[in-house]
Amino acid sequence: MNTLTHSSVEERFEALKREGLKLNLTRGKPSAEQLELSWPLLRIRDYRSPSGDDCRNYGPIEGLSEARELFGGYLGVPAKNVFVQGPESLRLMHDVFLQMYKRDAPGGISWERMKSNVRQPYMLCPVPGYDRHHTICRTYGIGMRPVPMTATGPDMDVVEDAVRDPCAVAMWCVPKYDNPTGITYSHETVERLARMETANPGFRLFWDLAYQEHTLEEKAVELPEMLSLCAHLGHLDRPFIFGSTSKVTFASSGVAMLASSDENLAWFRTSLFAQTIGPDRLNQLRHVLFLQSVNGIRSLMQRHRAILKPKFDEVDEILTRELGGRGLASWTKPRGGYFVSLYVPGRASEVVRLAGEMGVELTPAGAAYPIRDEADAHIRLAPTFAPTPTVGPALERVAVAIVKASGG
Amino acid sequence: MNTLTHSSVEERFEALKREGLKLNLTRGKPSAEQLELSWPLLRIRDYRSPSGDDCRNYGPIEGLSEARELFGGYLGVPAKNVFVQGPESLRLMHDVFLQMYKRDAPGGISWERMKSNVRQPYMLCPVPGYDRHHTICRTYGIGMRPVPMTATGPDMDVVEDAVRDPCAVAMWCVPKYDNPTGITYSHETVERLARMETANPGFRLFWDLAYQEHTLEEKAVELPEMLSLCAHLGHLDRPFIFGSTSKVTFASSGVAMLASSDENLAWFRTSLFAQTIGPDRLNQLRHVLFLQSVNGIRSLMQRHRAILKPKFDEVDEILTRELGGRGLASWTKPRGGYFVSLYVPGRASEVVRLAGEMGVELTPAGAAYPIRDEADAHIRLAPTFAPTPTVGPALERVAVAIVKASGG
Repeated sequence: MNTLTHSSVEERFEALKREGLKLNLTRGKPSAEQLELSWPLLRIRDYRSPSGDDCRNYGPIEGLSEARELFGGYLGVPAKNVFVQGPESLRLMHDVFLQMYKRDAPGGISWERMKSNVRQPYMLCPVPGYDRHHTICRTYGIGMRPVPMTATGPDMDVVEDAVRDPCAVAMWCVPKYDNPTGITYSHETVERLARMETANPGFRLFWDLAYQEHTLEEKAVELPEMLSLCAHLGHLDRPFIFGSTSKVTFASSGVAMLASSDENLAWFRTSLFAQTIGPDRLNQLRHVLFLQSVNGIRSLMQRHRAILKPKFDEVDEILTRELGGRGLASWTKPRGGYFVSLYVPGRASEVVRLAGEMGVELTPAGAAYPIRDEADAHIRLAPTFAPTPTVGPALERVAVAIVKASGG
Repeated sequence: MNTLTHSSVEERFEALKREGLKLNLTRGKPSAEQLELSWPLLRIRDYRSPSGDDCRNYGPIEGLSEARELFGGYLGVPAKNVFVQGPESLRLMHDVFLQMYKRDAPGGISWERMKSNVRQPYMLCPVPGYDRHHTICRTYGIGMRPVPMTATGPDMDVVEDAVRDPCAVAMWCVPKYDNPTGITYSHETVERLARMETANPGFRLFWDLAYQEHTLEEKAVELPEMLSLCAHLGHLDRPFIFGSTSKVTFASSGVAMLASSDENLAWFRTSLFAQTIGPDRLNQLRHVLFLQSVNGIRSLMQRHRAILKPKFDEVDEILTRELGGRGLASWTKPRGGYFVSLYVPGRASEVVRLAGEMGVELTPAGAAYPIRDEADAHIRLAPTFAPTPTVGPALERVAVAIVKASGG
């Protein structure tokens, strides 16, 4: 039963404004409570790896061997197919992107060379999508072609049609618990991405497994492992797979990984050699000793889930209570990840503005779109960082903003 | 008194070969004994910065404020003019390089645009120089013009002449305890670099202060601070200044910094935003708490010196004893840094080969040259990593190799 009647919404709005709360739902950050889960990591003083390496000194550019073993398992690939590097996968994506721009990758030519032949390379971007992916393209002048998201992943008819153009050089994907929709690509979507023929022989998938084990349910959703699937379907070098522990251990102080084919990694290694003597292995060692195994990661993620699940439940409950059945809004119910997508066609900007007046800061409307959200529909909700007791009041305000924006 | 007579060298060579020692003078790595100096850093469990930030979570992209304060002081620049980032300055150099390539920097046009106008940009490279600087240029197809080193830094007549060409876009410099010569640029050299007029208005100095406090004497050599000097001489945006703690605390697990003008940093920040949410602040905090102050860094570096000085002394003593006054070789006597340059004109490759036969691995002859060492003269000696008792035997073998190579 909705408690927000049209006649009461103005009153509620004014009352909530007067309360002067300050709530923030903009950032996909772990909460302090989640960070506490990894406290033993901060107590690790070891510097010698299980195999005897002194991790205080320079070591192999590919990362600590025990870390490659562990995070290969985490991503579902052999240790030899993963490089473990510094804290952020965003940096690895940026690096691979710039290398694709600057240097001929296996099977293709550099985007710079394409440009000098007056062909404008662009990337396919499921929309809504992760804003920092778009920032990379924007910063370096690579075009973006939006692809609509469906409940099973990007609209594959659109994708298969788009890759007939050789200027479509790559595609951003967050296939599991997508940022910001929370959707996981269906097996069929994944297989079509691995199987499709592309006009550009150097076409790549930027496969961002940011939320690989970040389930909100007892068991994580299954996603086919992309490296072996692409190999099986004859497109061995297609995927660059990214992962990190930013939301497993410590944001900004975790480790990041890149998995790909032997040939892609050999190609990427050349650029690594130009920018690093070797990654921070002390931090990799801490992670190996703390997490221990893929099962260790999974059980840690269950403890994250215990903290996060009530917040996501609260989002859904409040929105359902206040808006259910009224046709004013729809929203996703993610099975994992960090975000809920809220759709209020034609009113997203106004909702963000009104929520702001009641003290709730939301991500700017349209921020998840590479160019703009033509429908002014999408708002990304990020409930992870906010203390649990504040999620309800924040969502109540969002609901009031929606009713008010729709002339309630 | 040389103990190596021409008649005895063959005998010595064979005898030393038979001993079957394995010694390595190739890598500019700290020794295990040096790494021990920073053991308290590994015991720091704090995650809250002095100003109260939770460093386990995402924070400002420019780095921890206390770290900017400390390392601004270390580089001699205001905190606002330094970004503190991940472990390696090499990565920052690579990043700035690629940004200069890809994006118009303040006052100039991108190297990519120059290329599309059929102008081939190149960097000036003092020779011998640091091989990884050359690797960056080589990896991305930027030319290198060698500039001879003198006892006071790069030959400034050559430099001033070279920068009359607008295709000279930047210059690599290790102005203090240079890699590999150990030379520190004279005040006159530094001032001429800051003052000179360049045909390319976007010309930049890549000012690599890798060995800022890495003195082998009681007091570090003085080098003018380049940011304020360039500002004073009307070329505010000329220097990008790099530093790191790779040889202060832990190699690969330290922190790195970039100092530059407000405008350069604002420009660089745009690219940082495309690649990082923020740097590893836990590690920055550990460094702040361990090092405490610039004086704290200096006193730690004196303890490094106590370990390193005997090794460098040994290099000079053995070479003097075995080769002094014979005209077969010359070498540098660095006042700081990590390397000795050894010159054996026409015989460097042969000396490296012969030393190898006696079990001493040396950096390949010519490795410090961007294209090649025409004179086949230069060998870089790196005595820091080798245990002190092995430095003498290694250098003895190098001396024997030199005498034998010169027909002794």
